[in-house]
Amino acid sequence: MGKVWFVGAGPGAADLITVRGSRLLGEAGAVLYAGSLVSRAALQWAQPGCDIADSKGTDLAEIIGWLMDRAQHHETVVRLQTGDPALYGALAEMAGPLDRAGIPVGIVPGVSSAMASAAAAAGETLTLPEVTQTVILTHIEGRTPMPERESLDALARHRCSLCIFLSIAHMASPALGCARTHRHRDVPALRPGARPRLPPCRADTRDLRIPR
Amino acid sequence: MGKVWFVGAGPGAADLITVRGSRLLGEAGAVLYAGSLVSRAALQWAQPGCDIADSKGTDLAEIIGWLMDRAQHHETVVRLQTGDPALYGALAEMAGPLDRAGIPVGIVPGVSSAMASAAAAAGETLTLPEVTQTVILTHIEGRTPMPERESLDALARHRCSLCIFLSIAHMASPALGCARTHRHRDVPALRPGARPRLPPCRADTRDLRIPR
Repeated sequence: MGKVWFVGAGPGAADLITVRGSRLLGEAGAVLYAGSLVSRAALQWAQPGCDIADSKGTDLAEIIGWLMDRAQHHETVVRLQTGDPALYGALAEMAGPLDRAGIPVGIVPGVSSAMASAAAAAGETLTLPEVTQTVILTHIEGRTPMPERESLDALARHRCSLCIFLSIAHMASPALGCARTHRHRDVPALRPGARPRLPPCRADTRDLRIPR
Repeated sequence: MGKVWFVGAGPGAADLITVRGSRLLGEAGAVLYAGSLVSRAALQWAQPGCDIADSKGTDLAEIIGWLMDRAQHHETVVRLQTGDPALYGALAEMAGPLDRAGIPVGIVPGVSSAMASAAAAAGETLTLPEVTQTVILTHIEGRTPMPERESLDALARHRCSLCIFLSIAHMASPALGCARTHRHRDVPALRPGARPRLPPCRADTRDLRIPR
């Protein structure tokens, strides 16, 4: 019986995975990667002959089934996810059934795109004394409903750094947003680039179309 | 004139640095590491003969002076910081003066201990549909003052995941906290382990001594 590792691939560039993650990819007999979010370049760490599949278009049950099946045949199986697996990664939904089936599970954290976005913005920092000491990671309601206490309006009242995930469809003017740094209610809104080819940007919160 | 890289060492274990970060350490002629927070094991990536110094006990001006001086002599200089440089890392305070002095600056993001704490808690996830889709990274007022809008009480009202940095002095019972998972006001409070030898823990927010 093998072990299934949930590995954070990081924010996009292949070399922003952790050393531990790249080594596990090199040892893995099978890798299931989230092709809609993880760049194929990340697979450069896998060994030749590795059983590699893209989970794009499959559902949760299929993903779990694939991992369970491969764990019967390989000592190391990797589920490669974008950013960090604990953040918007459906980690509990996948690890729970494996755990209940007696399959050992390990987790390798990854660099979140929130941190990478700050780095990419050339010296942008998420916390600054006298300005803010708090960072909120959230998203705008889409397929996954948002608890009412977590509405962007309510969160923005703290006037801290706000990193908005999974919400590109709600950017009224993403291109413009990249160049605009003025602030609405003093809240800098940083849109982590969830897809490798989309640059992160800082936007005015007025550039967000928030569904009512 | 060399380039100064601010590199996130990640949450503690030497192999949780990024591949890019470990490579830059291998190329660096000089490395200044935050010894009070970064494990010496992280220096294993540096080349023999590298000019390595610990910034423990030095102030911001001395750190900037050291980096400026080494940038005159080495092509690659690394400032190695715990976690991610953009989060409680005094990044703007260091990068600003270098930038104004015409020294090129680069940033390599790192895995935050918030993500690593969730991973270390064996499958703990920071977001879960129907429960919370928001994560707040913050700390309790200490040497760095907290804006009033960012009080723990105010932030806890969202009942989302709460990662409390730099606040171990305010844990009434850190050892106990590790074993307790019940929730006060439904808020799981995860204390990222800022020092390599301190394990992360989940605590009841009642176990926090919050200064008034």
